[in-house]
Amino acid sequence: MSHDLSFSGEGYISRWIYCISRSANVYFSREMQKYGLGSGHFFFLRVLMSKEGISQNELSDILGVDKATTAKAMSKLTEAGYVKRDIDSLDTRVYRLFLTDNGKKIGQKLRKLGSELEEILTEGFSDDEKQQLLSLLERAATNAKKAK
Amino acid sequence: MSHDLSFSGEGYISRWIYCISRSANVYFSREMQKYGLGSGHFFFLRVLMSKEGISQNELSDILGVDKATTAKAMSKLTEAGYVKRDIDSLDTRVYRLFLTDNGKKIGQKLRKLGSELEEILTEGFSDDEKQQLLSLLERAATNAKKAK
Repeated sequence: MSHDLSFSGEGYISRWIYCISRSANVYFSREMQKYGLGSGHFFFLRVLMSKEGISQNELSDILGVDKATTAKAMSKLTEAGYVKRDIDSLDTRVYRLFLTDNGKKIGQKLRKLGSELEEILTEGFSDDEKQQLLSLLERAATNAKKAK
Repeated sequence: MSHDLSFSGEGYISRWIYCISRSANVYFSREMQKYGLGSGHFFFLRVLMSKEGISQNELSDILGVDKATTAKAMSKLTEAGYVKRDIDSLDTRVYRLFLTDNGKKIGQKLRKLGSELEEILTEGFSDDEKQQLLSLLERAATNAKKAK
């Protein structure tokens, strides 16, 4: 019954997503609270580590969250001294986002933390299975944006 | 870069889980707030629909959440009149959980809502790909419990 796609059983995608998401929250929260941050801030900092200078709208698109959520996270991360916002030189309505030195410093720790969680989640997976899961999840995440 | 397992890129499992989880929250919240409930309550009611009479501990295990989260959700669902708790006839320390008539009524709507989200998430997937995603996610969810 666990793989019943008709949803009468106990196995369905959103349930596993809920399970994994709860565990990931607990896992990230423990570290993030050392910096006065919540588990969700992990993902914002993680994107900024490889995409400095992006706009708030681009950041929302990448994470698939609404603009209000991103604006709130950026206010928090700016106040806490991990992110700085500069007004775009060509379009003054646009904020460009950058990590501060402190932001880069904790970013290194978060990169390691994220890798560790990936290893825990994929324990016993072959490389092919990891790729399959990533690829299928990426497609499901793209589909998920339509659910809003 | 999107499938870089070394976590230097933008594609990694916990990120897609975060994206899908945020969308699922928004999707379920819209319906759940009609009943004065939050998106997370969806999963508790959904389990109780097919496993009436289980204990709070069993419910925590099935959803991979801690006992305090389950206790809080059960208090809310009991107060709201969707769940009733009966003391086990053999072990008075154990609560057995049941849906009320109202709980069963909204359960039918939630089953439909959950199925619709599954369809959205797996749009464009073959049956094999759906099964693969379910199976890999179930394994990752089992692994995730070790992350706590």
